[in-house]
Amino acid sequence: MVRSLEWDDSSCTLQLLDQRLLPAQVEMVTCENYTKVSTAIQNMTVRGAPVIGAAAAFGMALAACQSAQTTTEGLRADLKKAADVLIASRPTAVNLAWAVQRMLKKASVPASTADDLTQLMIAEAKLIAQEDVETNRRMAEFGAALIEDGDTIIHHCNTGSLATVDWGTALGAIRMAHEQGKKIHVLVDETRPRLQGARLTAWELDQYQIPYHIITDNMSGHFLRSGMVKKVFYGADRVAANGDVCNKIGTYMLSLAAKTNGVPVYAVFPTTTVDLNLKSGDLIPIEERDQEEVLGIEVNGQRVTPQGAKAFNPAFDVTPNDLITALVTENGVIYPPFDINLPRAVEDF
Amino acid sequence: MVRSLEWDDSSCTLQLLDQRLLPAQVEMVTCENYTKVSTAIQNMTVRGAPVIGAAAAFGMALAACQSAQTTTEGLRADLKKAADVLIASRPTAVNLAWAVQRMLKKASVPASTADDLTQLMIAEAKLIAQEDVETNRRMAEFGAALIEDGDTIIHHCNTGSLATVDWGTALGAIRMAHEQGKKIHVLVDETRPRLQGARLTAWELDQYQIPYHIITDNMSGHFLRSGMVKKVFYGADRVAANGDVCNKIGTYMLSLAAKTNGVPVYAVFPTTTVDLNLKSGDLIPIEERDQEEVLGIEVNGQRVTPQGAKAFNPAFDVTPNDLITALVTENGVIYPPFDINLPRAVEDF
Repeated sequence: MVRSLEWDDSSCTLQLLDQRLLPAQVEMVTCENYTKVSTAIQNMTVRGAPVIGAAAAFGMALAACQSAQTTTEGLRADLKKAADVLIASRPTAVNLAWAVQRMLKKASVPASTADDLTQLMIAEAKLIAQEDVETNRRMAEFGAALIEDGDTIIHHCNTGSLATVDWGTALGAIRMAHEQGKKIHVLVDETRPRLQGARLTAWELDQYQIPYHIITDNMSGHFLRSGMVKKVFYGADRVAANGDVCNKIGTYMLSLAAKTNGVPVYAVFPTTTVDLNLKSGDLIPIEERDQEEVLGIEVNGQRVTPQGAKAFNPAFDVTPNDLITALVTENGVIYPPFDINLPRAVEDF
Repeated sequence: MVRSLEWDDSSCTLQLLDQRLLPAQVEMVTCENYTKVSTAIQNMTVRGAPVIGAAAAFGMALAACQSAQTTTEGLRADLKKAADVLIASRPTAVNLAWAVQRMLKKASVPASTADDLTQLMIAEAKLIAQEDVETNRRMAEFGAALIEDGDTIIHHCNTGSLATVDWGTALGAIRMAHEQGKKIHVLVDETRPRLQGARLTAWELDQYQIPYHIITDNMSGHFLRSGMVKKVFYGADRVAANGDVCNKIGTYMLSLAAKTNGVPVYAVFPTTTVDLNLKSGDLIPIEERDQEEVLGIEVNGQRVTPQGAKAFNPAFDVTPNDLITALVTENGVIYPPFDINLPRAVEDF
């Protein structure tokens, strides 16, 4: 399986798998500076909360590599500029800001030369990426333990190795359960408007040889009511201190239909996704993306919507904590009351 | 506004607006025999529960026109054959079966010649179409009275004049409210997989100059939670005696999110959509359509799903009666308890 990002030491460049071209083409995009990384995050060449954190960390490393500054103070000023641009690339996922802040913190340690500082930045970005793989593996193990042999699972958006440096969050758990020999059937929400499910999750499941059917997002209620679905799994872009989960648009309706029909709902994410500064999910800023993502849908080579039509395009929604059975992190599975247990799981490790 | 169907007396043919080509092309398909009508219903050249009833009635008229039988008994046998084919075209909507049964009943009245019987069939089909217009107009008036000036309304699928002979059911109510001078803003569910909202409802709202935004189906929960939406309106394909509504896939999740957020839900349909033989909605057969309708989605001229991917495609789902605020029919607005009030509204008129 190709990785969502690769760092090249010899040329000091970041390679990003262009997720917009999957599954038709597997192509890497080369980023030789941080503005290109910022653009790639914005236009979703790279997407998925954990991996955009790692990509932004490498963006900071690139900013160090490309800086013309010869003093450590000058370089730190350039890094601060790059940090502002990278953090502003997308507003909702908190891993992005977390990774950039961690890079800035590293930049503030004593260093004798600008070159030394640059090497520190590269090493820190690599460490973030490496930790992401380890974190995801632990999450996958905790998540897999919740999955039983024979389960049919609804999965929303893409949370696989494409959304992370490797393994994935919710899809990582499904993959791990499959590798443990459990028989699993996945109903893949296509995840309009960007179709990350139909495009990326289906492609990943093909690689892992896990049986699946694609469904339109609005079908999940029907299958939840039917008794066929045993679990719902998804990731998160930002989680508030009370366990409210902000995730890809559609997560709220899916969770509501699952809860109503007694089907357990699991959100899987690294603790870097948790924003303890926010008391509730309704304080999370929701990114409004270009309406063309909704309007540009085609069938048989022809655009479907009328000329001049308008659309709304909120990229995320908030699922209130009472619809969620448990939160799965690299520090373990967290059950309600989330407002007590989630901060504890984040801070105690 | 072009009509969804037109009968031509001189050539004894039925013209159907090809709804698959809208909004890019406005083209009529000529049906000169009943098998062509059956195919047009199956492949959704014509769709919408009320208008497929009318189309099937004209299909019976065509069967009479084209029959080589010279005796009334022979013609009646041919009509019976045509009825079986037409009823089997689509399984879920009950208006189709209702219209064909009514034509068969008419075929059983005494007639001196096969020609006389044929004329009776044509007249009856025209009457069904004409009654549909009148029924829709009455529903639209009852429905419009529920809409307030300034309302933002979520509408699912297409229930406009395209889905009926004229006016429409849920969209008819919205159009009537607009014509009464009420300011309305519609959030148009795109309605995957066939995109009747993005394709047809948006196109109709353009004709009526009613402001709207298209949203993906999975966004409606977000807007319902936000407090922006004041009402939800949709049609029905079959309604059980207890008021459970079978309608386009996605209606259940939409209704659940509306109910949870205290937003009233109105299903608008003619009483011919009610199947008093069925105690509950879970007895309604759900049509499973070709998976290509889900898998064939394209963006930027490229298919999105991986080669060999599979999909499920249930065309309808069932919304339990407790999620619905009121049922709007040509006989008035029906409130709970539906199991008492709905049969009364159907039978007492």
